[in-house]
Amino acid sequence: MKSISATLLERKTIRKYSGRNVDDYLLNDLLVKGCRASTTGNMQVYSIIITRDPAKKKELLPLHFGQKMLTEAPVVLTFCADFNRFSLWCRQNNAEPCYDNFLSFFTAAIDALLVAQTVCVAAESEGLGICYLGTTTYTADKIIEVLQLPKGVVPVTTVTLGWPDEDPEQPDRLPLEAVIHEEVYHNYSIQDIENFYRSKEERDDSRNFVTENNKETLAQVFTDIRYKKDDNITFSRILLKVLHNQEFMNQ
Amino acid sequence: MKSISATLLERKTIRKYSGRNVDDYLLNDLLVKGCRASTTGNMQVYSIIITRDPAKKKELLPLHFGQKMLTEAPVVLTFCADFNRFSLWCRQNNAEPCYDNFLSFFTAAIDALLVAQTVCVAAESEGLGICYLGTTTYTADKIIEVLQLPKGVVPVTTVTLGWPDEDPEQPDRLPLEAVIHEEVYHNYSIQDIENFYRSKEERDDSRNFVTENNKETLAQVFTDIRYKKDDNITFSRILLKVLHNQEFMNQ
Repeated sequence: MKSISATLLERKTIRKYSGRNVDDYLLNDLLVKGCRASTTGNMQVYSIIITRDPAKKKELLPLHFGQKMLTEAPVVLTFCADFNRFSLWCRQNNAEPCYDNFLSFFTAAIDALLVAQTVCVAAESEGLGICYLGTTTYTADKIIEVLQLPKGVVPVTTVTLGWPDEDPEQPDRLPLEAVIHEEVYHNYSIQDIENFYRSKEERDDSRNFVTENNKETLAQVFTDIRYKKDDNITFSRILLKVLHNQEFMNQ
Repeated sequence: MKSISATLLERKTIRKYSGRNVDDYLLNDLLVKGCRASTTGNMQVYSIIITRDPAKKKELLPLHFGQKMLTEAPVVLTFCADFNRFSLWCRQNNAEPCYDNFLSFFTAAIDALLVAQTVCVAAESEGLGICYLGTTTYTADKIIEVLQLPKGVVPVTTVTLGWPDEDPEQPDRLPLEAVIHEEVYHNYSIQDIENFYRSKEERDDSRNFVTENNKETLAQVFTDIRYKKDDNITFSRILLKVLHNQEFMNQ
């Protein structure tokens, strides 16, 4: 097992996995550790759906835009905000649950994300590789159908998990000063932004990215191609509709 | 430094801290590790506000409902969803940012929460204690004023950090089977709920909690006192208004 410092400092996302399975005993251990994460009022308002069945992965594949990690990874974990279980418990105990609102959704989403990240750290410390799939929030409506999630349950992120079959370079990060603020938020001057993003812009992979996409700047690759307006608006509407349908918008 | 297994399995929230400071070098190390967490498209759409100034803590204290961890902890970290910095970079690079919508808020919130939990794991592995403050989302409107957060920035959680001055019992968790689902969500029978929550209900601290609050069941302590309808509705409305005001609801 790696040290925690090495695990956290040297980590990188793994998108290619070997054929080796993740056994039940190991997966169980990772999940138990994950569930030790902080949770609001010790309510544990989350659920984790474990996908191992190739047929189920195939159903999920288009909902994650065909990203091949999904079918190649031995284990796929969908982390869900879940007030269904807690509310059932309330009703069985002569208590009227009142968690069909946006605050409760967000509380449950926080719970689910803290567990997800703890499972990932535990996995990486064992030498496993993980990849978060941001597509979960784009197609939550369809994931709900495939995973048969009842009202009160919304998927918030998906993680693929397996033994690494690649050793990519570690990606860059902004200098720490770019993301921290002492006491109050210090907004950024033009010069700050230039300084903080310069080394990212000057990387070979960034320059190639700009050229390959026929853009003038790296920022345009994000705004015009990777995370563009039309998609953001469409997916925002879907996600808000999901919150309505799953009964989290009665406030 | 503790092993990662011990760190994750034996963790508990710490609400009392000794007077010992957390030095800059150590804090820096924790934050660098945190920023190695997965981030959507490597955009790092988060910011971390560091509060050490006693005067600033005093301003934040009522916004966290007077929880004394806030003023007693040497360091308070407010983790924010932040598309402001990224959007400034876009504008300076001839790109039109399009992140003023709900999807972008939620993407940035996920980024911020993965960093928060990684910082917490790093801190706990060094023997530090942490406590998450759920009050952040209840009073986000006022926290925005105190921390001077610009449009495009929303606080999502707060963590107090310091050297433990208590060694509480580890709280209970539901059995793992209660929160995991194989392949699809298996909704809970009455018997399932009874089985999964029985040991929680039978704990001495739970029974005392029910008696002290003059309730019939533990669930009623949650629905009628700790997380009740009026509060949830009020705070939901505030949080949604914050998303509008911070320009994350243009979809």
